[in-house]
Amino acid sequence: MNTTIPNTHSAVNALEASLSLVNSKLHITGRAGNFEPIDTDYIPPYGDGVGYMPLQLFLISFGACAAGAVLTLLRRMQRNIDAFDMKVSGIRRTEHPTSFSEIAVEYIITSRDVTEEDVLKALALSEQSICPVWAMIKGNVEVKSIITLL
Amino acid sequence: MNTTIPNTHSAVNALEASLSLVNSKLHITGRAGNFEPIDTDYIPPYGDGVGYMPLQLFLISFGACAAGAVLTLLRRMQRNIDAFDMKVSGIRRTEHPTSFSEIAVEYIITSRDVTEEDVLKALALSEQSICPVWAMIKGNVEVKSIITLL
Repeated sequence: MNTTIPNTHSAVNALEASLSLVNSKLHITGRAGNFEPIDTDYIPPYGDGVGYMPLQLFLISFGACAAGAVLTLLRRMQRNIDAFDMKVSGIRRTEHPTSFSEIAVEYIITSRDVTEEDVLKALALSEQSICPVWAMIKGNVEVKSIITLL
Repeated sequence: MNTTIPNTHSAVNALEASLSLVNSKLHITGRAGNFEPIDTDYIPPYGDGVGYMPLQLFLISFGACAAGAVLTLLRRMQRNIDAFDMKVSGIRRTEHPTSFSEIAVEYIITSRDVTEEDVLKALALSEQSICPVWAMIKGNVEVKSIITLL
């Protein structure tokens, strides 16, 4: 199966990022590729809340990864996607480490031909082998998928 | 120990993000909080390379999380940080899932009083219990730390 699925993460086998602290609290700027730098921070009193919390960035990373996998797989099934939106929410542990114990992902797909079975099939493959961010949290975080077809 | 370490991720127990596909390939915009939206994409031919790849975003999320933990712990040891930079690089598996098999993190710390032992101590605690992103990939990704004191 692997040989038939395009590797949407390209042939780049190493990826890099650089980060710099920019104040005396926890405001950090992150860079990768040639893209607009991303401000990260924590909410008061630890930081000034001027940027994404690392866990918020994680949700976007995970969401974009799952979206890329599901979209690629649905298109390979010759399905038409008119609109694709996601809501991702993570429930954090109350004790350290305050990581996500559970992440809920709602896939909101506008399409004339996508069925719930199609999405379930794409999700199973994405979790199993196509979405690398999902693979890195496997066994540590429970992921729930919600499918909304419009 | 947990009760003595400030929870830099705040009292917020649930975090949310939303994502929307914005073209007919894989260009997706991610949002969380009130921050500037983040463009994500894949490189050609899958996408147009107009935004961060999800795995690049992951490196920034992980780096900012580890940085926040290490900085907080060093400051609690009464250490002075004049500058703090990081380089994070991830080596990807060549087969699906093309997740990071290994992440190398270089901590470049400019300080008059931080010692390598201080950083090692902070890193051990960060990995063990303070950095939530690190906790979520535990057992799945090998993380190597490099300490550079200036």
